[in-house]
This record gives sequence, C-alpha cells and structure tokens, in this order.
Amino acid sequence: MISPVEWEGDSLKILDQTKLPDEIIYLNTDDYHLVIEAISSLRVRGAPAIGVAAAYGIALAAQKLDSNDTAEFINKLDSVLEEFASSRPTAVNLFKSVSRMKNTISPDSSVENLREALWHEAQKIHQEERFATQQISKFGAILIEDGFTVLTHCNTGPLATAGYGTALGIIIEAWRQGKKIDVLATETRPLFQGARLTVWELQQAGVPVRLIIDSAAGYYIKSGKVKCVLIGADRIAASGDTANKIGSYSLAVIAHENNVPFYVAAPSSTVDLSIESGDDIIIEERSPAEITNIGGLQITPQQVTALNPAFDITPAEYITSIITEKGLIKQPFDKNLKKVLRSSKDAVS
Amino acid sequence: MISPVEWEGDSLKILDQTKLPDEIIYLNTDDYHLVIEAISSLRVRGAPAIGVAAAYGIALAAQKLDSNDTAEFINKLDSVLEEFASSRPTAVNLFKSVSRMKNTISPDSSVENLREALWHEAQKIHQEERFATQQISKFGAILIEDGFTVLTHCNTGPLATAGYGTALGIIIEAWRQGKKIDVLATETRPLFQGARLTVWELQQAGVPVRLIIDSAAGYYIKSGKVKCVLIGADRIAASGDTANKIGSYSLAVIAHENNVPFYVAAPSSTVDLSIESGDDIIIEERSPAEITNIGGLQITPQQVTALNPAFDITPAEYITSIITEKGLIKQPFDKNLKKVLRSSKDAVS
Repeated sequence: MISPVEWEGDSLKILDQTKLPDEIIYLNTDDYHLVIEAISSLRVRGAPAIGVAAAYGIALAAQKLDSNDTAEFINKLDSVLEEFASSRPTAVNLFKSVSRMKNTISPDSSVENLREALWHEAQKIHQEERFATQQISKFGAILIEDGFTVLTHCNTGPLATAGYGTALGIIIEAWRQGKKIDVLATETRPLFQGARLTVWELQQAGVPVRLIIDSAAGYYIKSGKVKCVLIGADRIAASGDTANKIGSYSLAVIAHENNVPFYVAAPSSTVDLSIESGDDIIIEERSPAEITNIGGLQITPQQVTALNPAFDITPAEYITSIITEKGLIKQPFDKNLKKVLRSSKDAVS
Repeated sequence: MISPVEWEGDSLKILDQTKLPDEIIYLNTDDYHLVIEAISSLRVRGAPAIGVAAAYGIALAAQKLDSNDTAEFINKLDSVLEEFASSRPTAVNLFKSVSRMKNTISPDSSVENLREALWHEAQKIHQEERFATQQISKFGAILIEDGFTVLTHCNTGPLATAGYGTALGIIIEAWRQGKKIDVLATETRPLFQGARLTVWELQQAGVPVRLIIDSAAGYYIKSGKVKCVLIGADRIAASGDTANKIGSYSLAVIAHENNVPFYVAAPSSTVDLSIESGDDIIIEERSPAEITNIGGLQITPQQVTALNPAFDITPAEYITSIITEKGLIKQPFDKNLKKVLRSSKDAVS
C-alpha cells in the first residue's frame, strides 16, 4: 500500500500527489515550512492524511526549534501550531491534530521530553488513522453487495488517508472479499483527483473502474446502474451535515431523488461535534487559476472571473448512513453521532 | 454578432469553434465532406447551428455533384443526405434539416433548378432559425428580472444557433433591456463550451459572468443566489422530456429540489413530436479521449476506461417552462407542445 506521508527518523517523506499518476516524486524534508506548503498546495490532501501530515510536521518543527528553554520552546511552537492550523480551512482533522499536539505540551517537561512526546503523539495519530480506516473498510464493505456498481467522487484511498482509505478503502475491501463489483469514478474537477488518483489506486488494487466527468454522474444514477454512492468527508457537523469535495451535494440530491443509498465514510476524527450544522462550516475558496488553467494551458479567455469553492455541504437528510471506525451510524445523526462518538465501540447504533 | 456559419456564394465559411477563444479561425470550403467533418468534430456545434450547417452543406454538395441527369443527381444526393444524417445522432435539428432538404427535391426539375431550390431552402432554414432565436430571446427575457443571477450550462449563444442564441440569447436580450443581471456559467466538461464559448460571448456582449466548474452549480443553486437556471436543448420529445448537454439533468433535479425555476429555451425545430418520451432519444457516446486528454495533455493513467455520453435527458416534470419562438409553453407539456407547434403563433398557451 502506497503511503502519502512517512516519518523517516529526522525528516518527513511526502508523496507529491499533484504529480501523480505521471510521476512518483517524494519530497524529503526536515523543514516544516515545506510541510505546510505541501498541505496548502495539495501535494498531500484528503482530510485524514492532512491531519497526519500536520502532526508529523509539528513534530518535525519541534525537533528543529532552536531552544533549550521550555518556555521559549513552547512559545515558538505555538506559532508553528498556528501556521499549521491556517494551512487549510475546511478539514477538521487538521485542527484536531493541531489541538492534540498542543495538548501534548506540558510546561513542566524538558525541551527534549517535549520533542519526544510530540513525536510519539504524531505516531499515535498516524496509527489511529490507519486503524480507523481499516475498521471503516471492514464495516463499509458489508454494505457493498456482489455485482454492485458503486459511484464515488474525489479520492478517498490510501493516498487521502495515510491508511487504508475511507470510501475507496471500503470499495477495495469489498473487492478483496471476492465481490464482483465495479466503480464509476468522477474525474473531480478542478484538480482531477478522481481521474488522476482514484483511477490509479483502483487500478493498482485490480478493481474495475470507469471514469466519468462529474456532470455525467446524474445520468448513471438515474439509469439504475449505480447501486450506491459512496464518498468521504472533510468535516461532519453534529447534525450529520457533511462537508466534502465540491459536487458531493449534487450527487446526494440526485441519489436521493432516485432512491439510491448515499453513504459517507470517515474516521470519527472527521466528526466535529462542536459544530451544530453545516451552516457553520467554513468553505475554502481556492485560486481561480485551478479552474482556468490545466497543466499550464489556459482554457478560458484571458480575463475571466472564476469562482472556486473547494467543498460543499450535504445536508444530513440526504445521507443514508455514515460509516466510521466505530461502526455504521444511522439516522437520526444528531442523536446517533453523539451516542457513538462519546461511547465505546460496543455502544454502536 | 459573430456567425458560426455563412454561405459565401460558392463556398461555406465555418468558424472553427474548437479553436475559440484563443484563435478565430474560419474554414472556407466547397467540399461537403469537410462540412460533415466540422459537424462531427464540433467545429460547428449547437443544435440549431448544426441544422443550418447541414442544410448549407447539402446545398454545397448539390452544386458540386457532377451530373446533369436528374435521376442520377437525386440518387447521388440521397447518399449525401444520409452522410449528413449520420454525422451526429442526438440533435433533431440536423434530421429536420436533412428531411426538409430532401423534401425540396422534385424528380420533375432540372438539375440546375434542384441546385437552386436546395440553396433557397438552406437560406430559408437559416433565416427561420435567426428569426426563431430572436423571438425566443424576446419572450424569454420577460422571465429574467432585474437583479437576477442566472445559471446556464454549455453554450447556447449565437455560436450555437447561427442566430441570436437560445438560453444565452435570452440572457443577452435581458441585459440589453437594461436589467442588471449576472451569469454563472458552468465550464461544461469535457469540451469546455461554457469556459471557452459562453464566457467569451457574454464578455463580448458586456454581460457580467462568473465561471464555475459543473459540480459547483449545486452549491450556488442551494445558496439561494441563483434565481433561475436556463439551458438550451438538443431534442425535446412530445412529453417535454429534453435531451441537452450532459449535466443538464443534474441541474434540473437540484433546481427542483431548491424551488428554483428551470427553463429550457429552443426553437420549435428542436421539438420532435414523433418521439413520445425521452426514453426514445438516442444519446451520443463520444470518444473517451475527450475526457482523458486536454489540449494534448493526458490527465489520467495511460490505460483507463472512460465513458463519455454527450447528453442526458431531463424529464419534463423538472422543467418549469419551455421557451420557443411561438411563446412560452407551460405544463402540461404533452398537451401544450402539440397545441403550440401545430397552431399559429396566436394560439400560444
């Protein structure tokens, strides 16, 4: 399984996903600024993978911070934490990672112990995401029946999660279980995560996949061929409203209209109980150039205004179930998300 | 007003829309095979413009057909008519043009008179489309209120119609009437007719336009900013079911879900009363390379299966009104389309 981010003793190895599938280029760095740049520019992307990369990036910064005085060290690290927190606005995993790293810091520790604790916490976050996505894959695969055509959007595989994948992890697990399934993958404009990454990851796993443009999804859902729509998430509010890649909302409405199940798969680290509804989730607006230029080629007239929201909100009412590492969460989400997330695995609804 | 196709005495001048907006390149040809190639490869596109180009192409072929024997001439021309009829499968205007040209042929005429009659019929088809789109623009503009943000898909301006435009003609007419409107134009994958052509045509007309990716349409419709969705059509069945650029169905469902009016604008030549419902409309499947390659750049892994349906069907139930040159047609379309199309302009519902 290819890994988007790996700790290598005193540096971080990041797979540059903007270069895939043409080139497999790794960025080896001990400079945390480059980790932030990699997050901002989507060299590492996908909510869980961003969380892991940020944790390692903070651990890396801690190793390099030039101070032996705990107070000074913590002070400097606080700025680093803020820099990471502002690298992208929508995926909650980023903020949870930053917050966990912050909570690791004790003013009573030596700088050396702090560095060690931060490194351990980053490792732990990574291991937890790996375990969570493995569990998600298993729980979700139960929903995928033999012969299903599954439609998925954007990229939610190992590359996006630093683990087994969420929506794509489920698909790959169902295939590994011997179910004869196939996938319709949306290309996912503007950055083609579907065309570049999802197709590539599914091909590597041997799962039959056909690529479609984003706006052809409705055609195939209406045709009756698609048996379920399965996506990941960047942030899930307490209500179950889900922020995910732009276009997810449209897929959910069309699936709903055609009585096709619409599943969201995400580790519980993606759920943000502090946010009541989707209205309160900040939607990242990215550069218009991502739309107007492709591989250096401008496809529009020279002077054009383009709007580039990177995410949209799917209201909970359109979501059939949410698949987490703690099990399948059913409606009503406002009640069941809290119940599951605040309890042990045994109490899953 | 830029014209996609013009008759120039003994040749046809076709604007190569695949090169827009970078280059304004005209193809001047007296070889009808090149007209067919221009239709197949989308150098001329848009249902009404295809109809006009085919009519001129047939008139051109008639001028060059090497025969002075009427029976032989008609025989040869029949093959030409068939070649045009198979150049694209979905837009009905093409078949209606071919059929009208065929009906012009009388076995009692001299070859010279037949050539003349075919040329006149082509001119007439063009003039009728011009007049129809002018009327559509006026009738439709009534629906666009001052301050509206209108969302449109694909390209339906002068370029697509060899006239004033359908959906885009309405938008431009509303702007000319002094209404302060603005447009959200979808880029329209895979061939970017929105990003390349609609943005360009609106800029030329001075109408404020912002470009979005196709899958961001739902986000803006749900936000309440979009006051109506306005599209063209490639074929409208007797039921009102409408074939149009892939993605139209999704927009219609989302508009319906958010109580946003969804209008279809098309000349009556686009209505095909011989087809009962959308189920019977043939959907063109185009080359996967249109999806996997952009400007010579392959964006996917080398071996990938892509599906590329060029159109989808919007069921009549999602359409608020159909705007034709004979006026605004309201629900129920199965009754009102027949009433309007089989009557004079005075009987418009």
